[in-house]
Amino acid sequence: MADESNQTDRSNQESERDEDDFYALDPSAVARIIYAVDIGDRERLIAEMEPLHPADIADLLEQSNAFDRRRIIELYGPEFDGDILSELDESIREEVIGLLHPEVLAEAVRELDSDDVVDLVEDLEDHQQEAILEVLEDSDRVAVRQSLTYPEYSAGRLMQREVVMAPEHWNVGEAIDFLRNQDDLPEQFYHIILVDPRLHPVGNVTLGKLMGSRREVMLSSLVEEMFHIIPVTRDEGEVAYAFNQYHLISAPVVDENDRLVGVITIDDAMAVLDEEHEEDIMRLAGVGESGINDKVFETTKARFPWLAVNLVTAILASLVIAQFEVIIAQFVALAVLMPIVASMGGNAGTQSLTVAVRAIATKDLTGSNVWRVIRREVLVGLVNGLIFAVVMGIVGMLWFGGPALGYVIAAAMVINLVMAGLAGTVIPVLLEKAGVDPALASGAFVTTVTDVVGFFAFLGLAAVVLL
Amino acid sequence: MADESNQTDRSNQESERDEDDFYALDPSAVARIIYAVDIGDRERLIAEMEPLHPADIADLLEQSNAFDRRRIIELYGPEFDGDILSELDESIREEVIGLLHPEVLAEAVRELDSDDVVDLVEDLEDHQQEAILEVLEDSDRVAVRQSLTYPEYSAGRLMQREVVMAPEHWNVGEAIDFLRNQDDLPEQFYHIILVDPRLHPVGNVTLGKLMGSRREVMLSSLVEEMFHIIPVTRDEGEVAYAFNQYHLISAPVVDENDRLVGVITIDDAMAVLDEEHEEDIMRLAGVGESGINDKVFETTKARFPWLAVNLVTAILASLVIAQFEVIIAQFVALAVLMPIVASMGGNAGTQSLTVAVRAIATKDLTGSNVWRVIRREVLVGLVNGLIFAVVMGIVGMLWFGGPALGYVIAAAMVINLVMAGLAGTVIPVLLEKAGVDPALASGAFVTTVTDVVGFFAFLGLAAVVLL
Repeated sequence: MADESNQTDRSNQESERDEDDFYALDPSAVARIIYAVDIGDRERLIAEMEPLHPADIADLLEQSNAFDRRRIIELYGPEFDGDILSELDESIREEVIGLLHPEVLAEAVRELDSDDVVDLVEDLEDHQQEAILEVLEDSDRVAVRQSLTYPEYSAGRLMQREVVMAPEHWNVGEAIDFLRNQDDLPEQFYHIILVDPRLHPVGNVTLGKLMGSRREVMLSSLVEEMFHIIPVTRDEGEVAYAFNQYHLISAPVVDENDRLVGVITIDDAMAVLDEEHEEDIMRLAGVGESGINDKVFETTKARFPWLAVNLVTAILASLVIAQFEVIIAQFVALAVLMPIVASMGGNAGTQSLTVAVRAIATKDLTGSNVWRVIRREVLVGLVNGLIFAVVMGIVGMLWFGGPALGYVIAAAMVINLVMAGLAGTVIPVLLEKAGVDPALASGAFVTTVTDVVGFFAFLGLAAVVLL
Repeated sequence: MADESNQTDRSNQESERDEDDFYALDPSAVARIIYAVDIGDRERLIAEMEPLHPADIADLLEQSNAFDRRRIIELYGPEFDGDILSELDESIREEVIGLLHPEVLAEAVRELDSDDVVDLVEDLEDHQQEAILEVLEDSDRVAVRQSLTYPEYSAGRLMQREVVMAPEHWNVGEAIDFLRNQDDLPEQFYHIILVDPRLHPVGNVTLGKLMGSRREVMLSSLVEEMFHIIPVTRDEGEVAYAFNQYHLISAPVVDENDRLVGVITIDDAMAVLDEEHEEDIMRLAGVGESGINDKVFETTKARFPWLAVNLVTAILASLVIAQFEVIIAQFVALAVLMPIVASMGGNAGTQSLTVAVRAIATKDLTGSNVWRVIRREVLVGLVNGLIFAVVMGIVGMLWFGGPALGYVIAAAMVINLVMAGLAGTVIPVLLEKAGVDPALASGAFVTTVTDVVGFFAFLGLAAVVLL
């Protein structure tokens, strides 16, 4: 029970800390760890690391610089746990694996469940992947290799292969006796999956119902109302959606013949949901796959393409402006005001597209409501456009004297905010139809529209009204 | 067993549909439902709705227009399930509650667990809240009222009050006998929580371990290694983070005297994680709390403040431009090129701030690595700035003849992309320190910096070089 008292102590310590920082690494603990490394005191390092969860140790390694990381790993030595590797961000996982002594690595990997090993090796380069597969026991290696034959990001990669199942004709007593005689039940399981003679899953019984029922009750009378079967090739993002939508706790995975081959549990689905969200946010911001731990070169490389796309759209907008050089030279106030129209359009467009992209991801934007949503966004653009038109019309008049410039910027504002609502909804929907991830590409397209329309409407109207 | 075969049929049907659309509502099913409503055929409507999960029915109601929504609810009548209310988006929940016959509403609400009722009523207006509380049984009403005394978005609102616990000195046999004699075990539970005589939780035993052990084994020897206690006032976002970070399945909740008062399970944590992400994405895009189902008026109101802030920052940028009217009048090319520098800076700043905001949310950006991250972002800005400086320098030269304009835009590009990296990291970090949600406010500040710096650097350098 030593472990809980540690945990309780820790939460008491935590309660004295800043309300938002319970689960962030304690800076003084980090300082003590670095001190232990500085003086090369292995006992002290181990003692300091002891209360940390593997996920916290992984965070510590991620937040350390490469020099400290190497020193911590070398001093920590054989204490290094396989779970730390699982928790590590991919960007430094290869580096850490390279730092581990081969025997420590072998020991760490052998502790892991086969699904964690799959997660660990799938992104490694071939020679590191082989090095890890070699140290596994034969049966584990076969299991891992088989999982790797399923497509990346599929249910097959996500599932555990250890399944607790029972024939559908068993009663509670038979199931309990069976469980008692099993030597290697999985670490975590919540349901017994009932299967028919051809190994097709037909229902789930929770362990709670099993424990609360008399021995002679048939398992088939205890099955959960919600039972959801997942094909082994299904995309993990769809799996996470199903868990979230239907409040699943675990779900059986079947092969192409509908035979039970594994089980996915909610903790794995939650991790995927988290990753998918992260990906959406990063894609919406044009940051690609990069994270906080990437090196300068990787980060530059990941962000460059989005900036390059933006440069092209910015040049496009400049070409529009260039058509109006004559009138700008005459009325420099146009140059002063024109970025306002484009900027407001860009912001309104980003608002619309973000709502649309999220609604597509959560399957809330479908054929049956797309026209209503488009109409709503256009109306919102119109109303906000009219309000800001009045504001900017007055600003324009006061700033530059005379009403003409006020009318022009007001009209351009309305036009651009309506276009922003329209483009911000239609573009993600069309991209999705075309099979392109709307989170990835909508931003560039929508901004191009609002920049081009904004500059063209403002300068074009100015040319008509002022000349 | 009727229910599973339905589910299986459904997944077979699904496999014929588009790879991305398994879990989206089937448009033909929606059409059949609307047809049943059109002809007023209650039997047919019930039959069409039968295979749908309450979450799917909620989606159907959300995606229908107000007219169809009313007709569906009226015809569906007493079949209306409490879980549908729980699944409904807040934006239309009040409307739907208003449409339900009082008796149907009472019946629907009585079916729900107390934590679901809390979730349902906490956002309702007072008179609707009272109407629902009145129909509850006395014990449930007391439980719901007590939950409502905990702060909004706290662990106390999220937890279930039904807890399965056992004294720490029991053995497996005593626990099993106890469970068998319980009449009302919670629908879903995965652990037995061990408590000391003062009702302090001291450990978790999984049902799987309980089933797999002999009767005389002490419960205290079976406790899980990972055990995490949550104070009842802790923010639900922090709770979700802990579940995700430490792979918790369920966690006991304690009051200020460390006494067990409830339990939070991973499915609730997953729902919170999903909401928190949604909120982050919406805040980053300046969309406030609005969603796809809001009406035009609410949506306009939610988005207006962000556009107003953007207008102020855009006017600030215009004031910078206004300082250079004289030189713009002389060299109109400056007006053509200046939006490019600002736009590139805005994009690079958004990239940096998104990475920083996410890293703060996941507690990966802390005091121990903040300087390294800032240095990294500035370097990335410098490298990308240099590359785009060369590109734009050449474009500027070719487009407008003569090298001077090329030098100016190149230098301004480098300056602005470095500033973007710096502001994109420092601003979220400072906002977080000041207790402001960085997702909410970073965008406006960072864009202001990149606009102002972009225009000032470009036009200022131009004034020096060209005049």
